[in-house]
Amino acid sequence: MPGTKERPPRGENVPVDFMDRAAKLAREGVEKGEGGPFGAVVVHEGKIVGESCNRVLATNDPTAHAEMLAIRAAGARLKRFHLTGCEIYTTCEPCPMCLAALHWAHIARIHYAMTRHDAAAIGFADADIYAAISSPRTPLLHTPSAAAKAVFAAWQAKADRIQY
Amino acid sequence: MPGTKERPPRGENVPVDFMDRAAKLAREGVEKGEGGPFGAVVVHEGKIVGESCNRVLATNDPTAHAEMLAIRAAGARLKRFHLTGCEIYTTCEPCPMCLAALHWAHIARIHYAMTRHDAAAIGFADADIYAAISSPRTPLLHTPSAAAKAVFAAWQAKADRIQY
Repeated sequence: MPGTKERPPRGENVPVDFMDRAAKLAREGVEKGEGGPFGAVVVHEGKIVGESCNRVLATNDPTAHAEMLAIRAAGARLKRFHLTGCEIYTTCEPCPMCLAALHWAHIARIHYAMTRHDAAAIGFADADIYAAISSPRTPLLHTPSAAAKAVFAAWQAKADRIQY
Repeated sequence: MPGTKERPPRGENVPVDFMDRAAKLAREGVEKGEGGPFGAVVVHEGKIVGESCNRVLATNDPTAHAEMLAIRAAGARLKRFHLTGCEIYTTCEPCPMCLAALHWAHIARIHYAMTRHDAAAIGFADADIYAAISSPRTPLLHTPSAAAKAVFAAWQAKADRIQY
């Protein structure tokens, strides 16, 4: 149905089309020096609702991975923090930060092109960071705090709390 | 030394003071309905360079955990994406998203008060999300893409690339 704007019947080509878009964003990001060679697109009901390249270098933000920025854009666009019913197309297997974020976001499905090993081969630490989740390299020091504990109790006591 | 603004000699009390600040931010966030009962403070050379409460609800951003926002603020403040020499004080053990982000950021040390199990006890999914990193609940579909592969090659060929 050419001309149908809301949801073009892309059929079997859908994943390729959205992955191409993610790759295009990644290429533009590399050319502009915004970050690494990564792009991501969040899709809801056949439409792109959030997209980005990696912008770590442009923003001095170590969390500015393509998937994170695409999720954030989609949440802002859809006005909800659970992206139920959305899929993501990303040029590379998500790192643990992005994978956990995609779970927090309740994304329904993740399509990725390159793997964490491909990323390692071009100098990125994804594989190491997967290892760090089960065996953190960074010292984690337990510092019990009565004040922190009291805030947890305040949350539980809050009648109008929204669980997420 | 009261009055010393740059780096008060807090001695043994340092962790407690910064954790108190994190707990105060958490409490304010809960009171304003910005998000869950979490706060975080990034410290560099004895000074706070980034801090936040959780703001998932206020921003419809599932990535807006306190640690993520504190890291982002610190990167912007220090104008660098590696927060080498910085420590973080967070009211709760970081979830895998935040733990991976802290590794990407090269944070030197993590101080936390409540645990992932304490978080589970008040309804948060941290423990489940830890499990999801090794066994993702969300389908991960490998969709090889020539375009994505070409961008990896472009990155490697980029003479002035900044590895991070």
